Order: sequence, then C-alpha cells, then structure tokens
Amino acid sequence: MINVGLLGCGTVGSGVVKMLAENRDIILQRVGQEVVIKKILELDRSKVYALGLGDEVIAASMDEILSEDIDVVIELIGGIEPAKTYILQALRHGKGVVSANKDLIASHGREIFDTAAEHGVDFYFEASVGGGIPIVFPLKQSLAGNRIKEVIGILNGTTNYILTKMSREGHPYEEVLREAQALGYAEADPTSDVEGFDAARKIAILASIAFNSRVTFEEVYVEGITRITPLDIKYGRELGYDIKLLAIAKEEEDGILVRVHPAFIPHNHPLAAVGGVYNAVFVRGDAVDDLMFYGRGAGQMPTASAVVGDMMEIVRNIERNDTGRISCTCYGEKRVIPTSSQRAKFYIRMLAKDRPGVLAGIAGVMGNHEVSLATVLQKDTNNGFAHLVFITHEVKESNLRDALTVLNGMSIVGAVENVIRLEGVEDYGA
Amino acid sequence: MINVGLLGCGTVGSGVVKMLAENRDIILQRVGQEVVIKKILELDRSKVYALGLGDEVIAASMDEILSEDIDVVIELIGGIEPAKTYILQALRHGKGVVSANKDLIASHGREIFDTAAEHGVDFYFEASVGGGIPIVFPLKQSLAGNRIKEVIGILNGTTNYILTKMSREGHPYEEVLREAQALGYAEADPTSDVEGFDAARKIAILASIAFNSRVTFEEVYVEGITRITPLDIKYGRELGYDIKLLAIAKEEEDGILVRVHPAFIPHNHPLAAVGGVYNAVFVRGDAVDDLMFYGRGAGQMPTASAVVGDMMEIVRNIERNDTGRISCTCYGEKRVIPTSSQRAKFYIRMLAKDRPGVLAGIAGVMGNHEVSLATVLQKDTNNGFAHLVFITHEVKESNLRDALTVLNGMSIVGAVENVIRLEGVEDYGA
Repeated sequence: MINVGLLGCGTVGSGVVKMLAENRDIILQRVGQEVVIKKILELDRSKVYALGLGDEVIAASMDEILSEDIDVVIELIGGIEPAKTYILQALRHGKGVVSANKDLIASHGREIFDTAAEHGVDFYFEASVGGGIPIVFPLKQSLAGNRIKEVIGILNGTTNYILTKMSREGHPYEEVLREAQALGYAEADPTSDVEGFDAARKIAILASIAFNSRVTFEEVYVEGITRITPLDIKYGRELGYDIKLLAIAKEEEDGILVRVHPAFIPHNHPLAAVGGVYNAVFVRGDAVDDLMFYGRGAGQMPTASAVVGDMMEIVRNIERNDTGRISCTCYGEKRVIPTSSQRAKFYIRMLAKDRPGVLAGIAGVMGNHEVSLATVLQKDTNNGFAHLVFITHEVKESNLRDALTVLNGMSIVGAVENVIRLEGVEDYGA
Repeated sequence: MINVGLLGCGTVGSGVVKMLAENRDIILQRVGQEVVIKKILELDRSKVYALGLGDEVIAASMDEILSEDIDVVIELIGGIEPAKTYILQALRHGKGVVSANKDLIASHGREIFDTAAEHGVDFYFEASVGGGIPIVFPLKQSLAGNRIKEVIGILNGTTNYILTKMSREGHPYEEVLREAQALGYAEADPTSDVEGFDAARKIAILASIAFNSRVTFEEVYVEGITRITPLDIKYGRELGYDIKLLAIAKEEEDGILVRVHPAFIPHNHPLAAVGGVYNAVFVRGDAVDDLMFYGRGAGQMPTASAVVGDMMEIVRNIERNDTGRISCTCYGEKRVIPTSSQRAKFYIRMLAKDRPGVLAGIAGVMGNHEVSLATVLQKDTNNGFAHLVFITHEVKESNLRDALTVLNGMSIVGAVENVIRLEGVEDYGA
C-alpha cells in the first residue's frame, strides 16, 4: 500500500481526493498497489470534511507529512512559501513529490531538481503546465530523440477565452474581461493572466525541458493582451490571421528565444482553431515535425488528472525500486537571447495624415532602419487621418523600435497605435 | 554502450539510422549511453550502402541479431511473418523490442505481450499508431488515473487527404484518389487505406490500451470511404458537418464499441480542423475531459521519431535494470458489442417521388421501426424525384437497417443512396 500526504485541499486537492476514490479500482489495477490519502495538511478543516473525510486525516503540522509512513507528497498549496520549504523537506526525507506549482518551478526549479536528484527521488510536475494535457512526459520520453526546434503554447485559458470572445463578437477588451469575471473565467485581479505572467511561467518550464537548459520566469519577455482592440482583430482577420496570446520558445543558433505576447497566426495554423478556455501546445521537432497537444489547461478534474498520473508513475518507481529515473534534464547552459536582438514579423497600425507622399515618407523611414514591408493597407479615414496597416518581413526588433520612435516624432504620423507580432507565417500562411 | 539490431532497412529503418547519427549528441545526453546500430538484417544491401554503412553491419541471418551483444531489436519489416517469429525470438533471448508493426500487434498482440512479460523485457510500439504522435505512452502514464470513455482517431493520412480534397474541391472520390496516387499519398493498391483496414488495426491497438482489454483487428467493424460523394459532403456541410474517416472506440455499460467508418462531425469538433495527411487522436477521460493529440501519422522521420523515443526508454530501463516496467495493460476481458445493437445518429440520403404524402409515408416507416427523425430536408429535384436528407436521433443500428430495407422496397422510394453516421453531435453540435 502506498500512502500519500496531500498539502492543500483546495479545488485541485479536492479533485485528487475524489479521483482516488472514484477510480480506486483502475488505479489499483494499473499500478498494482492500493493508494491511500493518509494525511492532509490544510488549515481550513471544512474543506476536508466536505469530502466526507474526518479529523483523523488532518495533519497537525508538516512533521506528520514527513513521517515514515508517507511515501508520496502532493503539493497543491501554490506560491513560493511555504510550498518550497515543504517540498524540499519532503524530498530530503526521501519522498517522491508531485506538484502543480508553476510559480515555484519557473523561478526555483534548479534547487528543487538538484535536491530531488541528490536524494534519488522523483519530483514530477505535469500539472504545472497545460492542466490535464500530457506534455512534460511526452517531451522527456516519446520525443526524446528529437532536437526540439520550437514549442508554442496557448497556455492561459482566461486570455484565450477573452481573445476568442473579442474575435467572435467584436466587443472591446474591458467589456469581455468583465463578462469573463462574471462567469468565473477571469479572477477579480486578472493581472497574472492578462499580463501574460501565468503563461510566462509555463513557457519557462517547457523551454527548460525542450532545450535542456534552465530558463526561469524572470528571463521571459512578457507582453499582455490589454492593448488588443477589436479594430486590430478585424484588420488581422482581413489579412488572414487570428489573434492568440502565445508563449513561444525557440532554439536558435545563438541561444534560446523565449517570450509571451499576443500574436497574429494564420487561420490554418493548428493553434488558430484552439478557442475558448482550451489550451494547446504546438511542438516542432527535427524528426517528428509538427505536433499539437490540446485540452483543458485548468479546472479541478483535468488538473487532478495530471497530478494523479504523475503520482501513479512515482508509485511504479517506488514499487520497482527505481525512483529518480527521469530527473532534471537541464544538462546544458544556453543563453537566452535578449528581446532587442530577436527577429520577427510585425503588424503595425498607425494613424497618418491622409495626403500624398505620406506613405512614401513612412516607408522611407522604415527602409532606413532595415524594416522591409510585405504588405501595406490603407483602411478607414477619419478627420484627415487614415488608418494604415503594415505587415513587415522578418526584422530585428530593435530596428523596428528605432523606426517607430522616429515615426512617432513626425508630423505626418498621428500615432503608432499598435504593434503586434506575427507567428507561423512561413509554414501556415496562405 | 547499447547495441541495436535493426530488422528491415526500408523507409522508416533508414530514418532511424539517420536520426541516431544526426542526433547522436542529444541521445547520448538524454539517456547517458552511446547507442549504436550494430547489425542490420536486410536482404537489399543497396539500402544499407545508401546510408553510408558497409558490409560489416549487415547481418547474415537472424542468429546474428540474437547474439549476446545486441541489447535492443527494432523490427521494421512489417506484416505478420517473419516479423512475428523474429520478435518472439528476440524477446525470448531477453532483448527489448521496438516495433511499428500494427498488423502484427492488432492481430497477435497477446502472444507478443505475454512473451515479453514472461521474459521480463520491454515491447514498445508507439510508432504503430499515429506515426510520430505520442499516444501510447500518454494513455499508459499521464492519463492512467482516468477512466477513458472514448478514443476517436483520424488514423489514416491517405483517406484524410482524399476526404479533405473532396471537401475543398468538390471532386468525386475516384478522381481525387488518382491525384493522391500520382502524388504518392495513396498506394497503387489503396485497399488497406480506403477500406479502413489500416485505421481498424490502429484503433484495435488504442482500444486495448484505453479499456484494458484486448481488442483485435478482426473484432473491429469497418466501412471505407469509397461510397462518399461530393453531394453528401455538400449536404453535410449545409447542416454544419465535416466528413472524416473516424476510428472510434468507446466503453459503454455492456462492453466496448469499436468501429471504423466515415462520419459527419460538427464543424467545431476539434477533429474537424485536422486536414490533409495529418492524423489526430481525440481522447475523453472522466477526469481530464477532452484532449486531442495531433501530428504526422506517417512518413520516414515522424515514424522514426516514435521508434527512437521507444528505444531510448528501453535503454533507460536496461541501464537501470528495470526492464518490463510497463508491459501489457489488458487486465480485463470485456466484450465487444456487435454492430447491430450499437446506437448512433445517422444521415440518410434517398431519392423519392416528389409528390404529396411521400414524406409522410417515409417518416411513418421510420417511426414504425423506432427511428426518430431530428431533421428532414428536401433538396434538389430531378425527373420527378427529390433528394431527401434525413438526420436521425440516436437509433439502434438494426432498427435503422430494417426501416431502410422496407423503404427500399417501396415504390415511392427511388433508392436509399447513402447512409453516414454522425459523431460528436451532443458535445460539439451547434
């Protein structure tokens, strides 16, 4: 029999308890062991009672979780402390640990993995990225023979819901955000989601696995969705693009590129069909070519599914005396390329005076900064100002920023109103 | 150092050799062992020479592959014999085996898995289903805590290419098949693909894993795509559906339902966006809810990717003295439900006399057989006959067949021209 210690009995923790009860038969068959939640560390006893469990499972302190009869610890407290201390303690006591804690892994992963390796135990974290979608294990196992070239995720359900709604209904960001909050799809303080921090933590974790080199949250360039307007979405659609908040990690010759930002992707890119609160991870490997993993990136039971899957794998390892078999895979030390020297294609929307020579003047400034234009569209005109939309060829980001600074200072330009990157155009563009 | 014996150096075998050479560095880092192709059993020596390898790697017979210094055998001969004999010999000699052989696994899986278990060695087969898409390991590991409810795959690239082209261009089946043959997307004898046999082998394998009970190719109900017409595709689209050749496995109260046939799915079903030669596997679990795995279901390097991933996992097991850790998962003995007692929704297209009372007559016959209609459309009329399209509610298959037999004998009915199942309507229908 395997005894589990559960840290935190909130939404996901309750889901794990339910899943172990409801699927007890198949879990027993599939790992050959009875798995029992022996102790729960949770201050709010009512959450434990709500599951039909009594005081006997409630741990008085972390010491009870560290006792000898607990084999596996599931950490679902979230945040940095006390989760970090508890996880390190559990690992040092020789226990396998399952965690869904993206904040912790994306910022303090190295210390945790080193501790797990030192003590020959497992630290599994499938639930920290993409909810129930299997992605960590596939990258470490089935795809292990590939040189991974890029991982591009829609890793935040809240922002995907908002952008999908904005695209379908043409309503502005603030209005759709309020709707999402009313429906429980966005939190009262939505900052971590809408500013891209949540997706940045997840892509830091995936980049570390894909490229075998530790990437931390702090190294990810982040841009949120708050500046996306229905007008940009409309113009993008006319050009064949859908808007998504993408978490992008690519390995290039001079290092790793890793960033989170809204991006236009071609309609027939596999990620373009991922709507609503769904998440997806697009992976390109040198042998396997393009793959996509799609599913629910959050929610009680999908996240519990990933936690229980990890736990069962640890149970197999314990049974077979083979713990620590797949530990940290960050063998390398690759540099993260600074944003300014990254290259991308861009959509630029600006207001400019509607008179002859203006377009030539703007194009001239771009050309002077090595910004080459692929498409120029003049859209609606108001009060002597025209909306101009430019799509660039691939340009160095710093060159574009310099050109836009010059343009913003010119009298013929009303304002550079939005700048949005394009992604996947070479392979999926019309 | 790990020595590999390769059986068959055709397209995929050559891909494996290339991948081991090109990604030698990452494979070494990720498994901690040098992996070398020591011997290749291949009658056509020119295939081996084409890879820059010499006579020294060519095995004179299977005995050389069974020698002590070969650790892992990769079987890429295909077909039942001699592949089966070779695999059984390798397993009995204590070697781990990787195979992409769907024909063999779908019909003789039990004998192979039993032999692997008996000798405590690994038999891995990720490449047998969905080419490079990781699906076997995710079902056995990450999703292991779920009661899987259904697995629905687009598992044959040739038929998906043909149906996608027919849908986009409105050309008839025969014409698109010839185009596909000219482009190398369909074989000269396309029977195994277009009649659904290839997909049936793959869904037999996935059903066995998902439901922990052996399902063989012979038990799968199969219907191919040869009777699909542009007219059906057009009418289906008007009703909100796309046509796909689906390989379906579901667990129901009284057993396992497993079948391959063309089906209409709602436009916004995740599988509807899977076009061209791509494959995808849709999985529904009780906790994880809906997932989809998408990628290249065939091709030299994608298939090699799956083979090499499996091989690396076996190398880890050998290194850690933990072979046989994930073996056959068919613990149960569940019945396969006969097609006649299965239930589904249907699209029916028929020609009937265009005069009053005909529709009432047809609907009456359906009603007498407990076939309840959800939608009735009268389409184009020619020479006094109208095209009628019916969408049924969920009906027992044998009831529908009985009703259609009666209708076919009635003078008001010209002919029942096509009958196509609907799938995914409850959850993804408009």
